[in-house]
Amino acid sequence: MLGLMQQHKLLVSSLIEHAAASHPNAGIVSRTVEGPIHRCTYADIHRRAKQAARALTALGVQPGDRVGTLAWNGYRHMELYFAVSGMGAVLHTANPRLFPEQLEYIINHADDTVLCFDLSFVPLVEKLLPKLPGVRHFVVMTDRAHMPASSIPGLLCYDDLLDAQPDEFAWPDLDECAAASLCYTSGTTGMPKGVLYSHRSTVLHAFGACTVDSLAVSRSETALLVVPMFHVNAWSMPYAGAMSGAKLVLPGPALDGASVYELLRDEKVTLALGVPTVWMMLLQHVSTKGLKPTSELALRRVVIGGAAAPRAMAETFERDFGAFVVHAWGMTETSPVGTVCNLLPEHRALPLDQRLHVQAKQGRAVFGISLKLTAEDGTRLAHDGQSAGHLKIRGPWVAGAYYRDESGPVLDDEGYFDTGDVATIDADGYMQITDRAKDVIKSGGEWISSIALENAAMGHLTIAEAAVIGIAHPKWQERPLMLVVVKPGQTMERETVLRYLEDRVAKWWLPDDVLFVPQLPHTATGKLHKAALREQFRDYRFPEEA
Amino acid sequence: MLGLMQQHKLLVSSLIEHAAASHPNAGIVSRTVEGPIHRCTYADIHRRAKQAARALTALGVQPGDRVGTLAWNGYRHMELYFAVSGMGAVLHTANPRLFPEQLEYIINHADDTVLCFDLSFVPLVEKLLPKLPGVRHFVVMTDRAHMPASSIPGLLCYDDLLDAQPDEFAWPDLDECAAASLCYTSGTTGMPKGVLYSHRSTVLHAFGACTVDSLAVSRSETALLVVPMFHVNAWSMPYAGAMSGAKLVLPGPALDGASVYELLRDEKVTLALGVPTVWMMLLQHVSTKGLKPTSELALRRVVIGGAAAPRAMAETFERDFGAFVVHAWGMTETSPVGTVCNLLPEHRALPLDQRLHVQAKQGRAVFGISLKLTAEDGTRLAHDGQSAGHLKIRGPWVAGAYYRDESGPVLDDEGYFDTGDVATIDADGYMQITDRAKDVIKSGGEWISSIALENAAMGHLTIAEAAVIGIAHPKWQERPLMLVVVKPGQTMERETVLRYLEDRVAKWWLPDDVLFVPQLPHTATGKLHKAALREQFRDYRFPEEA
Repeated sequence: MLGLMQQHKLLVSSLIEHAAASHPNAGIVSRTVEGPIHRCTYADIHRRAKQAARALTALGVQPGDRVGTLAWNGYRHMELYFAVSGMGAVLHTANPRLFPEQLEYIINHADDTVLCFDLSFVPLVEKLLPKLPGVRHFVVMTDRAHMPASSIPGLLCYDDLLDAQPDEFAWPDLDECAAASLCYTSGTTGMPKGVLYSHRSTVLHAFGACTVDSLAVSRSETALLVVPMFHVNAWSMPYAGAMSGAKLVLPGPALDGASVYELLRDEKVTLALGVPTVWMMLLQHVSTKGLKPTSELALRRVVIGGAAAPRAMAETFERDFGAFVVHAWGMTETSPVGTVCNLLPEHRALPLDQRLHVQAKQGRAVFGISLKLTAEDGTRLAHDGQSAGHLKIRGPWVAGAYYRDESGPVLDDEGYFDTGDVATIDADGYMQITDRAKDVIKSGGEWISSIALENAAMGHLTIAEAAVIGIAHPKWQERPLMLVVVKPGQTMERETVLRYLEDRVAKWWLPDDVLFVPQLPHTATGKLHKAALREQFRDYRFPEEA
Repeated sequence: MLGLMQQHKLLVSSLIEHAAASHPNAGIVSRTVEGPIHRCTYADIHRRAKQAARALTALGVQPGDRVGTLAWNGYRHMELYFAVSGMGAVLHTANPRLFPEQLEYIINHADDTVLCFDLSFVPLVEKLLPKLPGVRHFVVMTDRAHMPASSIPGLLCYDDLLDAQPDEFAWPDLDECAAASLCYTSGTTGMPKGVLYSHRSTVLHAFGACTVDSLAVSRSETALLVVPMFHVNAWSMPYAGAMSGAKLVLPGPALDGASVYELLRDEKVTLALGVPTVWMMLLQHVSTKGLKPTSELALRRVVIGGAAAPRAMAETFERDFGAFVVHAWGMTETSPVGTVCNLLPEHRALPLDQRLHVQAKQGRAVFGISLKLTAEDGTRLAHDGQSAGHLKIRGPWVAGAYYRDESGPVLDDEGYFDTGDVATIDADGYMQITDRAKDVIKSGGEWISSIALENAAMGHLTIAEAAVIGIAHPKWQERPLMLVVVKPGQTMERETVLRYLEDRVAKWWLPDDVLFVPQLPHTATGKLHKAALREQFRDYRFPEEA
């Protein structure tokens, strides 16, 4: 027997329609590529998204077609989020930080028919142009006054296209499982793989993001999206913003410490979201300039994802900014929010030191997400906070397959996706990643967590960054090698590092050697590039064996 | 082109499964009908819900069958919420406050095959027994020790049924649009009508309840459910509780001021939800006993729905309890949450008086809900905060039809349900109900809001309750008659009421007469029974015409 409730589909267009009806006057603030700060409202985004949908229709974009973007966080990019998905096409947010050959690969693999890009990327597109035979239209996301001189034939001006259209457009009544957007993972090995989000997964994920125990996005927040809109839909913030009416602050290309600080201050930002790398630049700026964030900012929460935040970062935000750090974990394949580290009521009274210990975890699964831990043979491990196993994930906003992928099924027989991480889960549901499965150091039949070693080292005030990789060892199979970048103008001894670690990790975890390096390699999304490190140190041998 | 995300259905069973995995140790506290306080966890509810599902299967309950309950708020009732819907049957929560002939009607109309009821209702069921030929099994929700002597043949003991079953049960993989629960409206005219909720509508509605801008239910809250579980699923709190891991406090049959206060204090309740009638009893208790809630309670928010709360009530909660009153609006047909009155950032700095003016509104539509206002001829009215029109509502948790209803379509041609309310909506999206469409007083071609008059009168310290109805008038069509109940031991003059109102409403709204009555009639759910009043005063004529 079926229920007798109204049938309404979960569509991306319903998000911007809700925004226009319920919080038309809430603001979107963008730092533009052209320079000035631009201010508009959800009502403006709604109106211009409809114009953009008409303009793209006029360019021949059909339902299901892919429309690519190469763009920073800004209001035009947000308009395209709603225009492209709303009209039934698929928004492909390409990551401009990928290598040109990867960009060429993904734009062709996605079969983008239109490519919209910021002024910053005109030279990049000019270079790629001969390799992109499928792209029929190239659109610069700017106004007439800023149109560049360019070799791209028939180059179109975004604002001109919109201005030529009336702002009436009837969003089509799509299947809620229809594709809405496409984002490629920036794998450290092989070519990127495409994750094809549906309208249903996007709306359910945004619903999650607005719940108190997840990101708690709401009408009361002013949210700075340092996380890029070309990376997993900026953790769904454009959608959650439209759902809730949060004021959004979009920083454009300026992610340096000074620019980010200025936006935090001038826009009275209460919630900021981004990866640790950007926060490092901000903290360095504040420290160098001797700023007093607590007296100048309204920042209450910093959501950190993409990589584990060093404990010292959470402490600094708490002490110097009066801001609570919320660890969130996910991946491109999980839309991305899988777990969020909010506190339980009983944690609030803990001394800071013990509380930060909880905050260092990746957090609890939000509703919709199921996690399991498995041993090498696939059997389930206990959620006891001790047993480390392969972390697998299931849920309505988790990928079930990759786009146009030939490599076979990606789910196990219970429908779980293997995250490639190794983790523990405790009795309260807190998940903690101990390593990437391929980075874990297998020493004498036990696992050493490279991440735990790196985090322990980064607690030292002289250390800017640390990486640990496993080096083949004749007796133990593998042993850890630590690579350390010291802060500018400082020096450090190998023994200092080892003595510092002695108090913080098990004795048998101590690295067999510590090397000081001027910098560490990172992926396009700012993660440590361990594969490159392993390649670089392939022939390294520990001193004892020399 | 379809997205490539995992397919997972929105099922009631997924809520309790999430609770068992993510917050197994969060607590459920019940004041039992038998007397003592009972404590258990979501893990216990999960385990016993599976036992109950097996027990009901053993009694012959099939997917789609209706299982009725006549029960207060308690852990056994909560177990049945998840057991019955989870196994694919339909939970019919009958309201024991209905008149016996209405109960007989709805239990037979729903075709309940099993009826589960608290000890309190054994005499009621004994009385109804001869009129309920379709009910095959009668189950008292108690343990063996408390089984009553009863004339009901084959009377079953709930705990015995569960104890006989193992706690393994595989929830079936249902259609997410399958019926999950059934609740009858308690209309003031005619027989009650059944609203048949689906699994999808239930889960989406619970998602909404956990968002910050709605009820903001979370793991950090201890929520007292004064709103009964036999009334619109206690505003979805059992589901939102399982989704979030909020600690739930279920008060059983004891809703008097002293009992409610004791639970608020002893369980450190942070969030309490209920209708104004119950809060009146609480406030009276606090006032009579000279209690100091701010120093004894942890209460932060009081959600008031079911009827508009007098402004004085919000002020008292704020001043004497330090608790913020959140107005919520909805109906049985809307699951029920339609709008919630949270503040915008700019409201927080307002002086209390002006802030209470905002809090007196019914609030903003939560995501999923669309509202429109229409004139008598069906044309849309502006959302300008001034234009009062028929309030119509659309969304995935709004009824599309009534259960086994012969009276034809209930939606207009745009798919909206007519709430029967008259309301305004302002530019920020705040909806304010000005009247029930059938209670509005039509005076000289204009509308007078009976509710606005009642609320204005109830601001007077001597007035306990006020009701306004329209009385036929030869010149103006209708004019308002006000009926006043004064507080115990106090007296009041007609002229005092009118002078008090003069400063608060338009002059042409002033009642043509004020009558003092010892009490006012209410419906089974505590609302003013205006139809009964109109009947009672059918022959009344204003003094001027005598």
